Amino acid sequence: MNGKMKALVKHREGFGAQLQMVDIPHIKDDEVLIKVKATSICGTDVHIYTWDQWSQSRVKPPYVFGHEFSGEVVEIGSKVTSVVPGDHVSAETHLVCGQCPQCLTGNAHICKDTKIIGVDTNGCFAEYVALPASNLWKNPKDMPWDTASIQEPMGNAVHTVLAGETAGKSIAVIGCGPIGIMAAGVAKAAGASQVIAIDLNSYRLGLAEAMGATTLIHAGETDPVQRVMELTGGNGVDVVCEMSGHPVAMDQGFKMVTNGGRVSILSLPVQPVQIDVTNDIVFKGITVQGITGRKMYGTWQQVSNLLKSGQVKTEPVITHHLKLEDFEQGFDLMIQGKCGKVVLQPS
Amino acid sequence: MNGKMKALVKHREGFGAQLQMVDIPHIKDDEVLIKVKATSICGTDVHIYTWDQWSQSRVKPPYVFGHEFSGEVVEIGSKVTSVVPGDHVSAETHLVCGQCPQCLTGNAHICKDTKIIGVDTNGCFAEYVALPASNLWKNPKDMPWDTASIQEPMGNAVHTVLAGETAGKSIAVIGCGPIGIMAAGVAKAAGASQVIAIDLNSYRLGLAEAMGATTLIHAGETDPVQRVMELTGGNGVDVVCEMSGHPVAMDQGFKMVTNGGRVSILSLPVQPVQIDVTNDIVFKGITVQGITGRKMYGTWQQVSNLLKSGQVKTEPVITHHLKLEDFEQGFDLMIQGKCGKVVLQPS
Amino acid sequence: MNGKMKALVKHREGFGAQLQMVDIPHIKDDEVLIKVKATSICGTDVHIYTWDQWSQSRVKPPYVFGHEFSGEVVEIGSKVTSVVPGDHVSAETHLVCGQCPQCLTGNAHICKDTKIIGVDTNGCFAEYVALPASNLWKNPKDMPWDTASIQEPMGNAVHTVLAGETAGKSIAVIGCGPIGIMAAGVAKAAGASQVIAIDLNSYRLGLAEAMGATTLIHAGETDPVQRVMELTGGNGVDVVCEMSGHPVAMDQGFKMVTNGGRVSILSLPVQPVQIDVTNDIVFKGITVQGITGRKMYGTWQQVSNLLKSGQVKTEPVITHHLKLEDFEQGFDLMIQGKCGKVVLQPS
Amino acid sequence: MNGKMKALVKHREGFGAQLQMVDIPHIKDDEVLIKVKATSICGTDVHIYTWDQWSQSRVKPPYVFGHEFSGEVVEIGSKVTSVVPGDHVSAETHLVCGQCPQCLTGNAHICKDTKIIGVDTNGCFAEYVALPASNLWKNPKDMPWDTASIQEPMGNAVHTVLAGETAGKSIAVIGCGPIGIMAAGVAKAAGASQVIAIDLNSYRLGLAEAMGATTLIHAGETDPVQRVMELTGGNGVDVVCEMSGHPVAMDQGFKMVTNGGRVSILSLPVQPVQIDVTNDIVFKGITVQGITGRKMYGTWQQVSNLLKSGQVKTEPVITHHLKLEDFEQGFDLMIQGKCGKVVLQPS
Repeated sequence: MNGKMKALVKHREGFGAQLQMVDIPHIKDDEVLIKVKATSICGTDVHIYTWDQWSQSRVKPPYVFGHEFSGEVVEIGSKVTSVVPGDHVSAETHLVCGQCPQCLTGNAHICKDTKIIGVDTNGCFAEYVALPASNLWKNPKDMPWDTASIQEPMGNAVHTVLAGETAGKSIAVIGCGPIGIMAAGVAKAAGASQVIAIDLNSYRLGLAEAMGATTLIHAGETDPVQRVMELTGGNGVDVVCEMSGHPVAMDQGFKMVTNGGRVSILSLPVQPVQIDVTNDIVFKGITVQGITGRKMYGTWQQVSNLLKSGQVKTEPVITHHLKLEDFEQGFDLMIQGKCGKVVLQPS
Repeated sequence: MNGKMKALVKHREGFGAQLQMVDIPHIKDDEVLIKVKATSICGTDVHIYTWDQWSQSRVKPPYVFGHEFSGEVVEIGSKVTSVVPGDHVSAETHLVCGQCPQCLTGNAHICKDTKIIGVDTNGCFAEYVALPASNLWKNPKDMPWDTASIQEPMGNAVHTVLAGETAGKSIAVIGCGPIGIMAAGVAKAAGASQVIAIDLNSYRLGLAEAMGATTLIHAGETDPVQRVMELTGGNGVDVVCEMSGHPVAMDQGFKMVTNGGRVSILSLPVQPVQIDVTNDIVFKGITVQGITGRKMYGTWQQVSNLLKSGQVKTEPVITHHLKLEDFEQGFDLMIQGKCGKVVLQPS
Repeated sequence: MNGKMKALVKHREGFGAQLQMVDIPHIKDDEVLIKVKATSICGTDVHIYTWDQWSQSRVKPPYVFGHEFSGEVVEIGSKVTSVVPGDHVSAETHLVCGQCPQCLTGNAHICKDTKIIGVDTNGCFAEYVALPASNLWKNPKDMPWDTASIQEPMGNAVHTVLAGETAGKSIAVIGCGPIGIMAAGVAKAAGASQVIAIDLNSYRLGLAEAMGATTLIHAGETDPVQRVMELTGGNGVDVVCEMSGHPVAMDQGFKMVTNGGRVSILSLPVQPVQIDVTNDIVFKGITVQGITGRKMYGTWQQVSNLLKSGQVKTEPVITHHLKLEDFEQGFDLMIQGKCGKVVLQPS
Repeated sequence: MNGKMKALVKHREGFGAQLQMVDIPHIKDDEVLIKVKATSICGTDVHIYTWDQWSQSRVKPPYVFGHEFSGEVVEIGSKVTSVVPGDHVSAETHLVCGQCPQCLTGNAHICKDTKIIGVDTNGCFAEYVALPASNLWKNPKDMPWDTASIQEPMGNAVHTVLAGETAGKSIAVIGCGPIGIMAAGVAKAAGASQVIAIDLNSYRLGLAEAMGATTLIHAGETDPVQRVMELTGGNGVDVVCEMSGHPVAMDQGFKMVTNGGRVSILSLPVQPVQIDVTNDIVFKGITVQGITGRKMYGTWQQVSNLLKSGQVKTEPVITHHLKLEDFEQGFDLMIQGKCGKVVLQPS
């Protein structure tokens, strides 16, 4: 397909981005061209937009960024058999090597040679995106475009919450950014008996509650560890989903988990963290899990099934629908924490 | 405590039972006397009542039967420290040896030297019951007596459903007796994306739906395997909870489970079952689990938490509340399958 | 590469096979041509050779059969990046679809659309074989060709034995064909405290002992269940690896496993099997696993590591090295059970 | 039993201990009197002996210390049914509450209300010790007394190594004190393809090798991370058993583990440790486990079976046999790291 399209381009080394007309990408034999119907802003996109230290070391402008989306297949390469034009799809963001020990044993999500769509390659903040067929996930045709777009970050929430037992368990979600908000919904759907959401942002705590949190703790007003102990009869929670990245909150997570419990960490603290290994890990006999990405594609199946069945709802977490042109407003909302997920519509 | 009490006695080798006045039991050092507030009828009690072949080989009349209950502690033995008078309790039905390899490794529920309360010892169809303190489970004081009474059979449902992953999975419950009905509720609470209840009894299918089943299959009207394949895009269900004990239904369970799936069997078929091991187990790479009793006491914690949190409701499944005196009506309902759980109140 | 090669051809619908000169296969973009250095005879090959009922329904002569081998890459397709000429390789026998729910979740070994090399496609009983690059497993260059050839069936043994805990456990291997013999070695290497090999063939029991079995039971002379009970203090074994396919032996397996134990079935009984589900599965609370193929490629990693480290030795199980021309002798040995693995050398 | 016995008494708040004649302890209804045949020195005993900061805050002299032993039952309380006089026994060191959520779910080893034999109660550095019957582990009568005595610390090694998969895996043991030395033996017995022992003490590295380590790294001479990467083709090890407690070594452990690997920590660093959570835990997708004590009594079964079967040998690790009177020599050896396990014989 030839022609031009609207695209949000990280145009320079510095703050911001620019809406530009660029060439519609050409596809290779094993690639697929997708018309983007909805695309959502990830925290990673905010890093790139604000040009923080991590972006400066990783990203090479100019290029089209964005990686969360849903869309319709409009063209397929000559070797593609897994989708046909008209299919509704989203995409796994990790482009993996397929040959390392991790890829060869069902752990492609932690491939050591991973490239990220929209970070290391052109992304989906555009009218069209070209992607390898092997990274696509087919959506049911009756799934709303905005819901389909946020499956990728919901996959992070699902991967974290479902990394161990949940039914009848007490689960604390520390950090209620969009993924934490979704994690509250997933925990409730997965049978948790207590879903305790913890943050400093009352608005986002409210979103977590709307998704399914059973108790909210504003960490600026209440000591989270003490409150969790009260809520659990002094035992502590069975599971901590750490999504804040703050050293103090992480320490509180280790203090509030019960002996034999699980701490699943999705967050990315910017500095090394001091951990009382002896008292908080060894004597407690807990399990700490690092969570990266989504299982390819077990997590996608879980997400898709939880959404199709209505076990997890997306209405509360998708707080804003904007035109792609209004990207500045979307990024401002994200920077200020005044939103859940922000969905952009290219057309 | 001295005196007489009402008790439902299996009074002879033959059909039926008799309400009698008997001595209130005396407790030993490590035992507890409990005033029974609610007690529910189990399928096992029906076997004893109708004096089937199994009962004839196992049970020694006259004795008080019954093993599902809730009540209040009224007296404790001199060595008891885990409960005090006034505590609300239910009890694990398995009296285990504590010294075999299974008991020593957290698998007391499959102790080879198990005795069953109300089968091998005097039970709880009475105003009072005496039990070892170590078999009691403390209930919250605001848990209704009838709900507390059915925790033991709900434990069977929880043990079966939660014996593997559930969130985002499709789960078929084959056989909608009271435990199957509860299993539907547990599966839904635990995040299953499809909960398919299968039975020949439309009334009980309705109860399963009220508990959380998302699809009902009347096996006399619809071919269950074909219908499940339609419902799962030809893939089959991820999990089968076999609670019917019928060879045909069990065979259908093996046919409807997907490759790599799980078949968890709680039922007790009266004859050996023909299984197509090659095609239904080996080539499919499935896991078959035998489920007995409840984990002591991991399952009790899960049940208690699912009930306290309201994740599983008991209203739909407790269809009848009767006085202990009206036991004949209760057993008739059970024999005819015209009920969920029947709760008897001794006073 | 053009030219002719020696190949063992299943030439007709009937008993036997024929050594013929056939064209060296041409490779596609994503395929690799391999010079076969060693190839071993599988039980499946014997089925095809003897033209049993299963073969008659599945196999379409004339074609080259055989699927266990090791060899050297001599030519690669234009899209192949994972191997280069000179690499030493073996191959996974399952050609899978890559797109079904099983393939998408790390369970490609139970893909519902599997084709088998040497059954549904041309195989490796030849001087050369052409295979998709994605099915190749790279071998260390210092691994002997015969050892490398039997990694595929050893994968079956490893997949079965390591499907649950092994260290400090008692493990019975029922059926000492070549895979059972290897299973004894794997069990011992994996820390089993007792490795009990059971068969009717004293010669093969001897091979199991040479691999690591600690106790042998000749099932024609000793009651295996009774003997296992004596050997385990009346408790039964923790793990049964069922590799015989005989209904009587399978029943004995269920009787000899301890409560809470595991029965991992690799065998393919030709008829449905009567199983006492109530007493042997449910009341015992055991887990029964169907085992198919090898995890792609987790099992291959385990096999490779166990062989490279010398934890499992192959000397005892590779009893015969023959020229490809002497295939009749090899098949006779297999048919009569007078061998472990038989390795054929095409040149 | 009345009379006096030799006992090693922590006699004062300060360095050292004293051999004294004290009363043979009297047993309660549920206790057992054991004649101690062998008792071994634990690192904890060294802390008490040298009167370090931890001891000062926990231990109340005067009392008999020591907790690793084997012996013969000489007298049982009136309620004891699990052992009889003449039985050979050792004991689990954790005295647990039996009623907390951990104890009720098979995790008594992380009971929040644990007392330690020989730390919080009188111990076994004596001719006789009195213990609750429920903490005893029966030994086979043909197990040597010294081997039987070190089952408790070997349980720590087994609990750590077997906390995940081992067969065909590469395992690094960081820190070769007596438990690390035993861990090397357990890893080898459990099928590890590489067992890499790391320490600064060449003598103890030699003991690890004698137990089964396949590669030794003297961390003062070779960079452990770089060497491990060479040994694993750049992938890193599958499992790290951290038994050093040193922050630098722990950091190296996190650096040398592969993506998706496991770090099982038994050591007790005296200060909080800085961990690069983002790069070493989250992006790697690893699992970190805190390991405390031994599973009660799953680990004891594993240890007993590994020893009875000869899968793990104790000859290399038991380097010294001394009379109880020569305790000073034993403690000196431990303080200087010039030993494996030191066994003391009271008579």
